[in-house]
Amino acid sequence: MAPRRARPTIEDVAAEAGVSRGTVSRVLNGGVNVSPAALAAVNKAIKQTGYVVNHHARSLVTQRSRSVAFILSEPQEKFFEDPNFPILLRGCTQALAEHDMPLLLSIAGTQEDRERIVRFIAAGHIDGALLVSTHAGNPVVDRLTGLGVPAVACGLPIGHEHDLAYVAVNEAEGARQATAHLAGLGRRRIATVTGPMDTPGGRDRLAGYRDALRTAGLDRDESLVAHGDYTQISGEAAMTKLLKDNPDIDAVFVASDLMAVGAIDAITRSGRRVPDDVAVVGFDDSPAALTARPQLTTVRQPFRRISQEMVRLLLARLDGQEPAAVILPTELVVRASA
Amino acid sequence: MAPRRARPTIEDVAAEAGVSRGTVSRVLNGGVNVSPAALAAVNKAIKQTGYVVNHHARSLVTQRSRSVAFILSEPQEKFFEDPNFPILLRGCTQALAEHDMPLLLSIAGTQEDRERIVRFIAAGHIDGALLVSTHAGNPVVDRLTGLGVPAVACGLPIGHEHDLAYVAVNEAEGARQATAHLAGLGRRRIATVTGPMDTPGGRDRLAGYRDALRTAGLDRDESLVAHGDYTQISGEAAMTKLLKDNPDIDAVFVASDLMAVGAIDAITRSGRRVPDDVAVVGFDDSPAALTARPQLTTVRQPFRRISQEMVRLLLARLDGQEPAAVILPTELVVRASA
Repeated sequence: MAPRRARPTIEDVAAEAGVSRGTVSRVLNGGVNVSPAALAAVNKAIKQTGYVVNHHARSLVTQRSRSVAFILSEPQEKFFEDPNFPILLRGCTQALAEHDMPLLLSIAGTQEDRERIVRFIAAGHIDGALLVSTHAGNPVVDRLTGLGVPAVACGLPIGHEHDLAYVAVNEAEGARQATAHLAGLGRRRIATVTGPMDTPGGRDRLAGYRDALRTAGLDRDESLVAHGDYTQISGEAAMTKLLKDNPDIDAVFVASDLMAVGAIDAITRSGRRVPDDVAVVGFDDSPAALTARPQLTTVRQPFRRISQEMVRLLLARLDGQEPAAVILPTELVVRASA
Repeated sequence: MAPRRARPTIEDVAAEAGVSRGTVSRVLNGGVNVSPAALAAVNKAIKQTGYVVNHHARSLVTQRSRSVAFILSEPQEKFFEDPNFPILLRGCTQALAEHDMPLLLSIAGTQEDRERIVRFIAAGHIDGALLVSTHAGNPVVDRLTGLGVPAVACGLPIGHEHDLAYVAVNEAEGARQATAHLAGLGRRRIATVTGPMDTPGGRDRLAGYRDALRTAGLDRDESLVAHGDYTQISGEAAMTKLLKDNPDIDAVFVASDLMAVGAIDAITRSGRRVPDDVAVVGFDDSPAALTARPQLTTVRQPFRRISQEMVRLLLARLDGQEPAAVILPTELVVRASA
């Protein structure tokens, strides 16, 4: 990864003020034994460098204030509907608890919500952020990386691949496995329901699907591609459209389990059977895969390990290490739907 | 309500240090034009009074940092199972958004989680707290009131009725209405499934049930009382026990809708019909009341207004007003289950 602008340090403040590190430290601890001129210079340098004030707060109080925000850039409804979020939240909470650090959850569904949480973090109240469900162009990502706040994204952060730490699965490879499994069952009219195209899961799972079709010698047909937003209802709507445009569809790779549940509803309501008439493969291996009827064949994301790696990378960032990326493998889980 | 220890102010620091408010303010803004002796005295006074440091941080940065934590003292599973919590969370988020204040959610299911969030708040990173699902003896309530952190409880805070602001419904009156409705239907063996006895909803709804039985001329019978913890599974278990001990039960008042759904499962599985054999009244009018089969007759809590009043009381506390209590009425909603 490329080097990046680091959060201003005491050294930066000292250099800007033209004083020693020790003088800055004494100012931060209350200004005892500091000349008024040095005090003024350090105070000015703090403002100019954008030195983050909670380092200051920390040195005045005995309590540690190391804390982490889990920022979900989705509306509240999605947080409660999508079973992946609580699993990630629990994993991150547990991993942070081992380091005695509190996790604060921010559900930032609107641009205003996102502005407010960034402002709170910029004021120095939170030391690091775990970013979940960040679409390309999300101002939380742009602002936090600009401020040099340690952060780790869940999934490839589109537009910040090189200046933000992240943990992702190999999206394209998972989608390839899923689609190749359908081709291996002899299916020839394989459709896909994608996630949003401004998310890595939307973009890269579609790429993997196309790769697998090519490998299987099947033609690329854009009418076999429909888009959803990871919700159940969007999966149902996308599948309804696919079956209307292409009544001969015999399989579908759906980019999330929740959308796959919606897709099964649409298939069943059209009078077709799963998997006999239309085989379905989902993505996630979330709890929804097990409650689906039939139970879903799906691509397992290792959520527990994802949470652990996110926290590990964030703690490394808090310790001053450069942002790293961790890519984890997925695994095809074959059940009843394909 | 009794007067209480307020959070230390700049005035308290000035008095302790024997300097003017302006001197403290200059120290907090970087120490320019302050003598070393005064600086030392103010710094010492800050530590002695426990003056909260983010006031300091705030004065150094231009961003406002007014922020509120929504602290749920329940395990994460309950947060996702109980439909009342997201409704309260959404209402509070929206009411705070009108004041451009971010809400941070803390799910503090264990004593360690509660210690961590209290430490974070005590360090001055959060200005006020909305406390949800606090059982008697919850250390979050004890510590925050001790620290003088503005807070508002949802429901009567047992043990802190006089030093903590709260918004509650008239629990006993709601339970009386529910039980009187069952008696009015001619039911004579009316059981109840309560919430935990260390919560106001557990304790006071049971009292209202007993009052209504007395008014209806029905004998008090302890074998008609079973306890749950507001979860669906606990309602099912409690109802199973009640029917085993008293096969002649013809009605039940259940202290939450989610437990009522579990109770209906138990009644149905015993071969009885709802409401023909056993009439059921719930409490909350949560979304679970409408998805229940049959749809639940229940006691409506005005959740939207509860959220609004909680935020209003918290903002008043942040502006220095004494803690107040708001008691809201409930309303019996008659549907199919009784």
